Amino acid sequence: MKYKLVSDAVVKRLPKYRRYLKQLKENNVSRISSGELADKMNLTASQIRQDLNNFGGFGQQGYGYSVDNLHDEISNILGMNKEYSAVMVGCGRLGEALANFLKNYEPNIKIDAICDIRTDFHGKEVVGVKIMNKQEFDAYLDSNKADIAILTVPPETLSEVVELLTAHDIKGIWNFGLTDLEIKGVAVSNVHLSDSLQSLIYYINHPE
Amino acid sequence: MKYKLVSDAVVKRLPKYRRYLKQLKENNVSRISSGELADKMNLTASQIRQDLNNFGGFGQQGYGYSVDNLHDEISNILGMNKEYSAVMVGCGRLGEALANFLKNYEPNIKIDAICDIRTDFHGKEVVGVKIMNKQEFDAYLDSNKADIAILTVPPETLSEVVELLTAHDIKGIWNFGLTDLEIKGVAVSNVHLSDSLQSLIYYINHPE
Repeated sequence: MKYKLVSDAVVKRLPKYRRYLKQLKENNVSRISSGELADKMNLTASQIRQDLNNFGGFGQQGYGYSVDNLHDEISNILGMNKEYSAVMVGCGRLGEALANFLKNYEPNIKIDAICDIRTDFHGKEVVGVKIMNKQEFDAYLDSNKADIAILTVPPETLSEVVELLTAHDIKGIWNFGLTDLEIKGVAVSNVHLSDSLQSLIYYINHPE
Repeated sequence: MKYKLVSDAVVKRLPKYRRYLKQLKENNVSRISSGELADKMNLTASQIRQDLNNFGGFGQQGYGYSVDNLHDEISNILGMNKEYSAVMVGCGRLGEALANFLKNYEPNIKIDAICDIRTDFHGKEVVGVKIMNKQEFDAYLDSNKADIAILTVPPETLSEVVELLTAHDIKGIWNFGLTDLEIKGVAVSNVHLSDSLQSLIYYINHPE
């Protein structure tokens, strides 16, 4: 299913909806109005209705949203109801932390191969996956399909790694490589950890 | 200096401006038009002018922005020209990765104390800082001023840690604790690592 006119801002909010709805589910809330959901999420009720109307609505006038249903719908829209095979390139401290984070919190994204060029890392296991050298990783990609690549390599290695992955038809890249990637035909999330810290520092210096 | 009407969206974009301007500086670009900067950042020229007008402008009609000057101005606006004393609570894999990330890339945020309740972590050093137990950490906070707390504790520990920190007048919390915090008088950035991954998965499933 295609939703042609959905803005990046809406797509960025979908995981947040999913998180809040999951929390409501865990607290045994079965139904919520857009007003209540808006209060929880620091949005306006009209913004929530607009956001969800991009995907067909889901609410009933005067009756609100079914929490279970809306959670599942948003998971479906995101594609989080499916499993993905991921590979990780670069597995220092951050890579290891991310691998464990996914294993604990997003088990539908399964890391099936890990590569690091540092020889002292080879053979070591992270989340039960043995770290490969470049040659082993090339061979892995030749005979396995990977959906998502998680990159924690330094900026100077990034282009070489991207070349290898795109040659193997990777669909998405979760990029912690500090340099923004933009690749035709490949979905990319460029993550800059310190952006949220810098915004925090702004608010420390400019309290409301 | 106060900028009263600056929206969260603008504050979130400031670190991105700073990153791009730093890159331009490194490439010895000294002057850039809002159009060129817009192209690089996937924004519109008018959005850039509007964003920067929140803080007084900085451009000259028909002449563009001085890269050096704009970089420094944005650093000043964010408060990234100053030093901050940070404490870290929870220092597993993610905490260690974040501590090393800051040490390498944002040296003005200095981690001066680290606490973890796991006894086998006590005395171990991360970025040259010895991991404290709770008692040592309490004593540290009693006699030192901390600006920022970096939290990588599990959700069930979060409220206790927040109570301790707010009692010691913490100004800002960079929260990786998976549960959103909202604390009166304290700046908070709630970070959810997998949000950007879920957006990525959306784009994999809905290619343009």
